[in-house]
Amino acid sequence: MERLMRNIKLTIEYDGTNYSGWQSQKNAVAVQNEIQKAINKLTGENCLLIGAGRTDAGVHALGQVANFRTSSKIPADKFSYALNSLLPDDIVIKKSEEVSLDFHAQYSAKGKKYMYLIYNSNRPSALLRERAYFVPQKLDVDAMKKAAECFLGTHDFSAFRATGGSAKTSVRTITNVSLDVCHNMLDACNNLGSCNNLIKFEIEGNGFLYNMVRIIAGTLVEIGIGKLPWDSVPGIIESRDRKRAGRTAPPHGLYLVEVRY
Amino acid sequence: MERLMRNIKLTIEYDGTNYSGWQSQKNAVAVQNEIQKAINKLTGENCLLIGAGRTDAGVHALGQVANFRTSSKIPADKFSYALNSLLPDDIVIKKSEEVSLDFHAQYSAKGKKYMYLIYNSNRPSALLRERAYFVPQKLDVDAMKKAAECFLGTHDFSAFRATGGSAKTSVRTITNVSLDVCHNMLDACNNLGSCNNLIKFEIEGNGFLYNMVRIIAGTLVEIGIGKLPWDSVPGIIESRDRKRAGRTAPPHGLYLVEVRY
Repeated sequence: MERLMRNIKLTIEYDGTNYSGWQSQKNAVAVQNEIQKAINKLTGENCLLIGAGRTDAGVHALGQVANFRTSSKIPADKFSYALNSLLPDDIVIKKSEEVSLDFHAQYSAKGKKYMYLIYNSNRPSALLRERAYFVPQKLDVDAMKKAAECFLGTHDFSAFRATGGSAKTSVRTITNVSLDVCHNMLDACNNLGSCNNLIKFEIEGNGFLYNMVRIIAGTLVEIGIGKLPWDSVPGIIESRDRKRAGRTAPPHGLYLVEVRY
Repeated sequence: MERLMRNIKLTIEYDGTNYSGWQSQKNAVAVQNEIQKAINKLTGENCLLIGAGRTDAGVHALGQVANFRTSSKIPADKFSYALNSLLPDDIVIKKSEEVSLDFHAQYSAKGKKYMYLIYNSNRPSALLRERAYFVPQKLDVDAMKKAAECFLGTHDFSAFRATGGSAKTSVRTITNVSLDVCHNMLDACNNLGSCNNLIKFEIEGNGFLYNMVRIIAGTLVEIGIGKLPWDSVPGIIESRDRKRAGRTAPPHGLYLVEVRY
């Protein structure tokens, strides 16, 4: 008797600190491997887990998406609970659902949303050390805000692309950006003055090149410090010259928030 | 020539996850030891570091206070930078200042403020796993708010005291409480509905008994679940019976926010 094939979509949160990233690397544990191992243990099958995209070592996810096919009869929404009981605490399946067989976490994706957190204070934070990029210089948030808006629209983002990616074109469309100072709960405001020292940068688009968000975040920080003027961004984009953009910001400030389908 | 003795006050943030707590325990590293080691290395002396109070293993601090005497001539505010360069990343000196010789971090303390974070969602959080207490049952925040206010004032808190503490009296005065639902940045709101799933409980008083805040937090959770009515709190306090209060909530949701002098 033929067994019915089903396609299961997972929405995943992970703390990237202890992983080589989403995808397997030599001599390092990848998030993908951990989840695939748990699925195989649960289903007794040898499933292939397809992720929406890679994340680098140290990068976090609030809403990474992946899918796999299975003939298991486990109800779709039960997969999350069953897999969570097999996974380490720093990887959590937030949602599991059945989708049509043609759903492909990578190829079906229409867009992604990322968040980048910057901790701007005169001393580092113990509690946010693996959650936000520590910048001790006073940042000009207004200049950063204006600069962020320059990324909106359709551009060739060659200047914000690291070597090593496999994308054929470097044209991408950015549909939304925001940059705001946030209330930081994990700081002792009363002792030490204002705790509005967390800067949240969000960016949404139809796709992102290798290290693109981290290079944009690094450029915004250089603008915040005053090393680059905010209105240099259109010229940097136009130049398509990686050397003119800022340095790549570290991975631990970056979060893959959402994949849109 | 006699060397001038100075008294240095430190304000300290730490991630308690990897420590046995503030104070040294057999076979486990304590936050106090790490800082004392760094001070001794920096000053070449054998200083005694006095903390405002102990915190248990896994408990965090945003504003723990400690002091030590030294004849070192390092400017007071430079101690923080010098010590941070010697300390592991999960311990950060946020402020260092010179205080009068009679200042004693423990005996001079007039009060303390704690925060307890609860993550209330149907699935756990990978990123907050060591920062907030995960409670999967839907919590009645209004009932918890009303219950929290019952702790205000001067009471004998024997019902909220674990054995093992050395305090002579169990009478304490609570001067401020608050309980609010917070915006949780580390959750993918758009994918998964509201991210108002972080509950922040704050409590301030002239002193706290052993495990008192964790037992109060555990009691508030039982009230939120509906296991106890909110108006049972005055009776539980009055009973002075530990068995009538709720279970001790886990350490990783607790933060020492501030010590008042």
